[in-house]
Amino acid sequence: MHRSPVVDAESFDRILSSMCTEPHPAAREAAERFLASNPGDPATYEEIAELETRAIDLLAGIVDHPDPRTADGYITSGGTEANVQAVRAARNRSDSDDPNVVAPESAHFSFTKAAELLDVELRTVPLDSNLRADTDAVSAAVDADTALVVGVAGSTEYGRVDPIPELSAIADDAGARMHVDAAWGGFVLPFTEHDWSFADAPIDTLTVDPHKFGRAVVPAGGLIARDSTTLDALAVETPYLETYSQATLTGTRSGAGVASAVAVMEELWPDGYRETARRCQRNADWLASELASRGYEVVAPTLPLVASSIPESTIEELRAAGWKISRTARGEVRVVCMPHVTREQLEAFLRDLDRI
Amino acid sequence: MHRSPVVDAESFDRILSSMCTEPHPAAREAAERFLASNPGDPATYEEIAELETRAIDLLAGIVDHPDPRTADGYITSGGTEANVQAVRAARNRSDSDDPNVVAPESAHFSFTKAAELLDVELRTVPLDSNLRADTDAVSAAVDADTALVVGVAGSTEYGRVDPIPELSAIADDAGARMHVDAAWGGFVLPFTEHDWSFADAPIDTLTVDPHKFGRAVVPAGGLIARDSTTLDALAVETPYLETYSQATLTGTRSGAGVASAVAVMEELWPDGYRETARRCQRNADWLASELASRGYEVVAPTLPLVASSIPESTIEELRAAGWKISRTARGEVRVVCMPHVTREQLEAFLRDLDRI
Repeated sequence: MHRSPVVDAESFDRILSSMCTEPHPAAREAAERFLASNPGDPATYEEIAELETRAIDLLAGIVDHPDPRTADGYITSGGTEANVQAVRAARNRSDSDDPNVVAPESAHFSFTKAAELLDVELRTVPLDSNLRADTDAVSAAVDADTALVVGVAGSTEYGRVDPIPELSAIADDAGARMHVDAAWGGFVLPFTEHDWSFADAPIDTLTVDPHKFGRAVVPAGGLIARDSTTLDALAVETPYLETYSQATLTGTRSGAGVASAVAVMEELWPDGYRETARRCQRNADWLASELASRGYEVVAPTLPLVASSIPESTIEELRAAGWKISRTARGEVRVVCMPHVTREQLEAFLRDLDRI
Repeated sequence: MHRSPVVDAESFDRILSSMCTEPHPAAREAAERFLASNPGDPATYEEIAELETRAIDLLAGIVDHPDPRTADGYITSGGTEANVQAVRAARNRSDSDDPNVVAPESAHFSFTKAAELLDVELRTVPLDSNLRADTDAVSAAVDADTALVVGVAGSTEYGRVDPIPELSAIADDAGARMHVDAAWGGFVLPFTEHDWSFADAPIDTLTVDPHKFGRAVVPAGGLIARDSTTLDALAVETPYLETYSQATLTGTRSGAGVASAVAVMEELWPDGYRETARRCQRNADWLASELASRGYEVVAPTLPLVASSIPESTIEELRAAGWKISRTARGEVRVVCMPHVTREQLEAFLRDLDRI
């Protein structure tokens, strides 16, 4: 069976809905060399295990970890696994019989999944007028049973960055751990003035996904922890593997994802990522202003994501024209200005919008 | 940065410890075309979503599902995720406030992980003299709170197949669900006389991994369910994705794994897999007899896996010579005769063993 080349199988021409993107060529090349390696069996697959150590070192630098020697973590299947593991570590370290997690309404649905899976209570609190976690509401929600406070740095629906230092202080006062979900934002935020990283607040764990703005292949997520206490809280014994415990949620993991993450981070950090982040932000700002000038209501983008109120019937026609677009819970269209989204593509989208 | 070709990066020349293997060329080719697709976002990545449907159809056939129209499941990251999800579905469907899972001592450590994660009690019961689940012990362990009985079809340490019909009957009597872990054995067992599949017993869920004997790339595991009740019990809502719920443990998943699984199953099922299974079994039988003739104690292989009592000092020297070998909890060496393990490779291993 012969098929058309890669670009045809995975065309990103009209994808405006995804938080993943066209991988960088260096990422593809590295992935193709490790399609049979399993980082979940490091004694057998030593080369990929070494690459994973390198990936964590690189990620720790990107998220401003204060001390690379104590930074810990692993390459996950994505943000969901990293978020689930952050909740699990907090639950396992909690003294409470009935632990809860406090998160803003803007938290990704993986926290709902984590709560169901791990049998912890998820307390979601409202956002402020700027669509960020309302710190008063978070303060009111935490109690002695709170195991974890979650802040989002680059929310899924609106690209907003929660007040991470304030949330960390609330967590600290409550004796809870602090987790930041920067799955999508983590490769853009280093080039902004936002407070979001280990350097900005005493956070315990952070999600940052190479396969989103990091331009690695799928699947390559990241969980970075302040120190080894997180993974220690997750470890189960592994008889028969020649290592003694496994802290990951999954067992077998993607060597291709790990290798591609290292290759692309070595290629693009920091200059290539800075350039991409700025181009994507310019595209988002331009699209927001074009939509506003057409009379659509627009949520002003703080990161490269534009939400705008476009009538449902128009959305259906855009989809019929081949555009992959998704909607917020309130019904706005979300356009995620990922690296594969060009100005020309946005112009074509606006032409179709104008026509409809 | 330029590196040596694929064969150098991932040499399987001396790997006798892994339950993964060198992928089939058709699997590699397909994987390379879907390195950026996410089956976890099926509305955006429609082509890979269709391929996943095809993968489940093919897997359902391989595990003798009685009715492809009602078969359900998905491509997981591997056996761990599939086993965790089987436990989670059983827990979620149980009426008990304190559900338990009954599994033989030979069950993979992913069931320990599942129990910790999901806060269910894991009751492990002894094996019989042939290293299979002791059905009397299983009967004694189940009670009204038992949510799931686990049988292993191809155990990690000894390649043994539990008495699946008998275990299913015990589960049924207890009002529990029945899960079969055929992660490793599932592409070999169809060519044996063992009772293990949906055709042999009224099982609810089954783990079968394309990236083990199925010769797909990593990661490509499989969870197959009798009907939709399993995935329904796992679903959480997914605002903002253009689908309405997600039943998987992870969020983002590997399109490469899915595409490679379809390609290789279409290429090899059933004749290619039969031929591979028979060659691997002949290699295991030959190795067992060679080891026995040298005076080593050998656990007679029922599937392509040989366990043998080799002194620890010898094991260390074999490792120093580059052999990747692992040990059972009792200390035997395990040699997993995967498709990449050739007779020549085993001869070289024996030569090193004789020399040492």
